[in-house]
Amino acid sequence: MSDDILLARAFLNRVAEPACVPLWKLVRDVGPVEAVRMIRAERVVDEVAQATAGRRLTADPEADLEAAARHGLRLVVPESDEWPHFAMSALEQAALERLHEWEHGQKTQSPSGEPIPPLALWVTGPADLASLGVRSVGIVGARSATRYGEQVAMDLAHGLTRRGFAVVSGGAYGIDAAAHRGALAAGGTTVLISAGGLDSPYPPSHAGLYERAAATGLVVSESPPGSTPQRRRFLTRNRLIATLATGTVVVEASLRSGASNTAGHCRRIQRPLMAVPGPVTSPVSAGCHALINADVQPARLITGVADVLALIGSSSDVPIGDPAHEVSADDLRARLDLLDDVSRSVFDGFRAGRAVSCDELAVSSGVSTLDVIRSLPALQLAGLVEGDDGRFRIARAVPRGSRRAGVGSK
Amino acid sequence: MSDDILLARAFLNRVAEPACVPLWKLVRDVGPVEAVRMIRAERVVDEVAQATAGRRLTADPEADLEAAARHGLRLVVPESDEWPHFAMSALEQAALERLHEWEHGQKTQSPSGEPIPPLALWVTGPADLASLGVRSVGIVGARSATRYGEQVAMDLAHGLTRRGFAVVSGGAYGIDAAAHRGALAAGGTTVLISAGGLDSPYPPSHAGLYERAAATGLVVSESPPGSTPQRRRFLTRNRLIATLATGTVVVEASLRSGASNTAGHCRRIQRPLMAVPGPVTSPVSAGCHALINADVQPARLITGVADVLALIGSSSDVPIGDPAHEVSADDLRARLDLLDDVSRSVFDGFRAGRAVSCDELAVSSGVSTLDVIRSLPALQLAGLVEGDDGRFRIARAVPRGSRRAGVGSK
Repeated sequence: MSDDILLARAFLNRVAEPACVPLWKLVRDVGPVEAVRMIRAERVVDEVAQATAGRRLTADPEADLEAAARHGLRLVVPESDEWPHFAMSALEQAALERLHEWEHGQKTQSPSGEPIPPLALWVTGPADLASLGVRSVGIVGARSATRYGEQVAMDLAHGLTRRGFAVVSGGAYGIDAAAHRGALAAGGTTVLISAGGLDSPYPPSHAGLYERAAATGLVVSESPPGSTPQRRRFLTRNRLIATLATGTVVVEASLRSGASNTAGHCRRIQRPLMAVPGPVTSPVSAGCHALINADVQPARLITGVADVLALIGSSSDVPIGDPAHEVSADDLRARLDLLDDVSRSVFDGFRAGRAVSCDELAVSSGVSTLDVIRSLPALQLAGLVEGDDGRFRIARAVPRGSRRAGVGSK
Repeated sequence: MSDDILLARAFLNRVAEPACVPLWKLVRDVGPVEAVRMIRAERVVDEVAQATAGRRLTADPEADLEAAARHGLRLVVPESDEWPHFAMSALEQAALERLHEWEHGQKTQSPSGEPIPPLALWVTGPADLASLGVRSVGIVGARSATRYGEQVAMDLAHGLTRRGFAVVSGGAYGIDAAAHRGALAAGGTTVLISAGGLDSPYPPSHAGLYERAAATGLVVSESPPGSTPQRRRFLTRNRLIATLATGTVVVEASLRSGASNTAGHCRRIQRPLMAVPGPVTSPVSAGCHALINADVQPARLITGVADVLALIGSSSDVPIGDPAHEVSADDLRARLDLLDDVSRSVFDGFRAGRAVSCDELAVSSGVSTLDVIRSLPALQLAGLVEGDDGRFRIARAVPRGSRRAGVGSK
């Protein structure tokens, strides 16, 4: 990756607020380097000109990259190997689905943050950003949490970390902090996604938490160093939690809250949404109960680690042969329906009971090896395929009889 | 109703344990008086002979009726006006559905109590037994309840009683007692269904509760005076709670518990089942969470009176014109599907916006007046029809456009 691209992305990341639809469209159309040239030359459509007017002349990507380096931060961009392509694909998909809408009239930005991928991410910490979304769980909730909620968040984070999940949260008081701490206590990976620049932790009293998360996991922000946390940045940050987690658990939330906003992002990008019940007398459980009772895309009621694993774990997390966790033929069809044609063809290429390489799959499915590699994460996330060491097989939870039936009836 | 029938039912009620399938079949086939004659003459099939052998010679219906009278009890039988025909019809239906199964091999009784109607009920108290099921709510749960659970049970009972619901429960420690007390505190009707004979309240320390329930509501038992509460009687009692309530709320329950048994009865007879969430750390909320999370016939999560009203209240309990509570065309079709042909014909006989008498309905629907009267409770319970003072109309929650469409597309 060239320095040009890194500098261009640093400029773009600074010149407008996160989740700016016109800017995202411009970069999508002409690429980051040309987008920067056009903005600097004031040869852009009105919406981009408006969004970038305030910082067009002062944005200084070299200075941002230098400041970041001083704070131990790196800029991760879509062109780099570290970019979490798999996790971001859902956001990309949601953005493409809304593109038509945005191009025809809707110029104002959504108050809850648009579902578009970030242009770049500021990151610190040794954990693997690229693989996030395959086995990670968002644990979010009220800042004004109860001791009950904090205990549940910590226990969930602890148990899921011990089973190899990364715990993703927002670093805030209450549930977020309890989730990070539970993961850290288990010696696992936690991913803290901040709403402000990573030069100054927010809240300031969580500086130690930021440090500990960065020591073994990741601390991530879409905002460049020096950015203060603002309401809008919390909302756009929430979409990154939903995106970088395989599924998200809301532990406690009042009826209108940041966690409900995160839940909305989960629904928009079709990520499993879970909620922990609590006393009906507790205002910070009311949001969870409303999510569970929702008529459309209800959250799954979660009482502990096992419930989370049953929903977003892989087949090796559940007892093999447990009929309660087997994928029914209907369920298989539903999961396949959510995939694209290429992924379905790749699934078709599997033979029952045999572990195969990507090259073998390419031959049997009639799809290029590159497409096979691109499809496998989605098939794994859907619980249809499992594998390691470069060899893959149909997941053990998919019953033998229904495997081909599900495909055949498509 | 003749004394013969009352004496015969008293004998049958004494001679075998509640929910005895062979005895119920015999009475169904030959009527109560002839059934008694056959049992006394030992001219019955083996199953009935076995079930009645122990008490055939000692059963003394006159003595039971005299003892009952001394305790202020009356025997209510299906042949009397006070029998809750409407509520019992669901149990009758479930029994008929299983009849074939019973007749072909299954001789042992279910450990959870068979879904058959009682042969008679011992009752005390002034409330209207016949109308139970139209606007009543079962509130049940753990004996070892928490203060949280007791508070929720009491609040629900209090609020629902004030809205004209009768609160049905089992008189036990914990949730049951809290539900009865909440109803009594609101000056409303509570129905206490006991597992033992009504001459000796169980637990004995609840004698005052029995007295207060009987003073304004009802105390009911399927077992004759002198019967001690036994495990099997608790299970068969639970089916009466499920049956006599329009819907049942489980407030707290451990994973295997009497409340789960009551929930099973609700499902078997298709009564709305609700459950209150609580802390995931509380073992007595685990049963509620399992009911809410069930794959088949899950319980609805309930946080308060409004949630219960939305599920089992009538249209006048919800804000008129609130689109969230309107009956959709699909919903209307589904509700009509659950009714029998006669009820559907009666619904067909309504004209939008007009309140009509039973006689007018008989003319417009081509159904006898008696059948109209029999169908109206089911139509009201289904939320399709509302009315009072002998005049009925299509429920306001049924949107005008969908009313005829739902019927036409049948």
